[in-house]
Amino acid sequence: MPAKASRDSVEGLVDSLLKGDKRSAGKLISLIEDDEPEAVEALARIFPHTGRAHVVGLTGPPGVGKSSLINRLVRAFRSRGKTVGVVAVDPTSPYTGGAVLGDRIRMADTGVDPGVFIRSMATRGHAGGLALATFDAVRVLDAMGSDLVFVETVGAGQSEVEIASRAHTTVVVEMPLTGDVVQTMKAGILEIGDVYVVNKVDLGNEDVLVANLKFQLEARDGWTPPIIRTAALEGRGIDDLAGAIEKHALYLDQSGGRRKREVARARLEILENVQRLLVRRVSEGSRSGRAFQNLAEDVAARRLDPHAAARKLLGSGSTAR
Amino acid sequence: MPAKASRDSVEGLVDSLLKGDKRSAGKLISLIEDDEPEAVEALARIFPHTGRAHVVGLTGPPGVGKSSLINRLVRAFRSRGKTVGVVAVDPTSPYTGGAVLGDRIRMADTGVDPGVFIRSMATRGHAGGLALATFDAVRVLDAMGSDLVFVETVGAGQSEVEIASRAHTTVVVEMPLTGDVVQTMKAGILEIGDVYVVNKVDLGNEDVLVANLKFQLEARDGWTPPIIRTAALEGRGIDDLAGAIEKHALYLDQSGGRRKREVARARLEILENVQRLLVRRVSEGSRSGRAFQNLAEDVAARRLDPHAAARKLLGSGSTAR
Repeated sequence: MPAKASRDSVEGLVDSLLKGDKRSAGKLISLIEDDEPEAVEALARIFPHTGRAHVVGLTGPPGVGKSSLINRLVRAFRSRGKTVGVVAVDPTSPYTGGAVLGDRIRMADTGVDPGVFIRSMATRGHAGGLALATFDAVRVLDAMGSDLVFVETVGAGQSEVEIASRAHTTVVVEMPLTGDVVQTMKAGILEIGDVYVVNKVDLGNEDVLVANLKFQLEARDGWTPPIIRTAALEGRGIDDLAGAIEKHALYLDQSGGRRKREVARARLEILENVQRLLVRRVSEGSRSGRAFQNLAEDVAARRLDPHAAARKLLGSGSTAR
Repeated sequence: MPAKASRDSVEGLVDSLLKGDKRSAGKLISLIEDDEPEAVEALARIFPHTGRAHVVGLTGPPGVGKSSLINRLVRAFRSRGKTVGVVAVDPTSPYTGGAVLGDRIRMADTGVDPGVFIRSMATRGHAGGLALATFDAVRVLDAMGSDLVFVETVGAGQSEVEIASRAHTTVVVEMPLTGDVVQTMKAGILEIGDVYVVNKVDLGNEDVLVANLKFQLEARDGWTPPIIRTAALEGRGIDDLAGAIEKHALYLDQSGGRRKREVARARLEILENVQRLLVRRVSEGSRSGRAFQNLAEDVAARRLDPHAAARKLLGSGSTAR
């Protein structure tokens, strides 16, 4: 097999994808993950066929049970007749793994069902790139015909905000702490969730956390985020959670919120592509790439401030290629 | 006092700042933090006077002792005759606080020393914005004449990568876990540190962590990141850490790495300013703002893919204002 897919085979892969072929989905996601030049063409071909899937982001600290929840949610939505895709961002470095890896393997079991596609993406430490690749992978699963796509990321400042600005429904997962620990809530966590889950209620001690959340959460644009109690390993509360997700999807359709989110996401994605394009042009040494690099060198030498450089970049048109 | 600083007073504030006035520094950082229109002018005025300070980013999980380490480092560098600025990003939401807040107050004690300036920034959940504001604040302290500026952020995927791409020296702080816990290392953590600290060695059990780090860390561009054992609360290992930071600063000067980092940071900052500029133009409804918004709506409606929209945005020059 050649290292890079040819032009013809990208077209072929996309055609197969649109017929629901999982192998093509896997190959296309690999092109995206490896940032191959063919990925741009593939995404352009895929793009018009996207926008049908409801994208659900799950975020929360490590060990809170996100994989187990998704595992259960996949089954719940399958039994409702929906096809489901999962993109999981694996935050463990090669030499840790352990529990999380175990979860991945359990999740992979559901992969024999033709209505389920699961893909784990590796984090490689490149800022922005991972978010871009993750949601491009979501797009592949969307075009394949998935009714729902779940995205699992470890909750961590920036990445939470990112998931919230790209998913249709953001599910924030917390768990009660036991013992004499003061339960802290991460900054911004109250602003991003459409649905809150208190998982591992079998541990007990969840009432303080639920009460805290209830006290802090406010309605936004007419939607009050529900708080769902679950015990994912035992399957408790999963139907409530699936119901809350469906209810939020309906709310988005009826309130015009879906379109608003799509436009906000588009703005974000255009800007990311601007960044990707410029970085590539610099490494290619094209005229516009050199122009950008010159601006950066002017800024580094304090001949120009970054804001003025940005105005030049946007304003002059000299970056046309 | 008027809510917004007038044009004259921005000039006055910057003049005072350049003479080392701490009050002006505080006011200018507030302008930046609140994203006031005057901040753009202030930063443009400040910018030519920056580039002297050595910027040290400290990152690591909550509770690892970053504030205590910085507290000690401030004293260590003060006793070496250096002036020091600190920008701490406060990750706690209003209703948690506790231990971290206590640290802040202890740190503030050193604020009576005229050679020390400490500022805590609030996270407000806006993506990118915080990093931008944080490093603009660093710039203020740089222009004020600080020899060193420490930036403290909670280690969390994206924010770690950000700190590493902006600081001159990135210090990654870890601590040994006690008991039967498998010590996991976050993804990407091995790639970003110039100096590694194993803090709280008074807890014991640090040898496994140090050995793990030593086994994994590799030389990059001729620099092998040292691993420093500290017990910040007792002040142990602080001189070693200060020495490692000084050694890395020297290495950057001698290897040309400082200039390389400055250019990479400039690229990043130009792109962030592009984003900020476009978002502002959209909200102002200017011609270029409307053009960007139209592209976003085309993308949301799947008439255009994000990559093509990015090419249009960069290429057409129609975004000139």
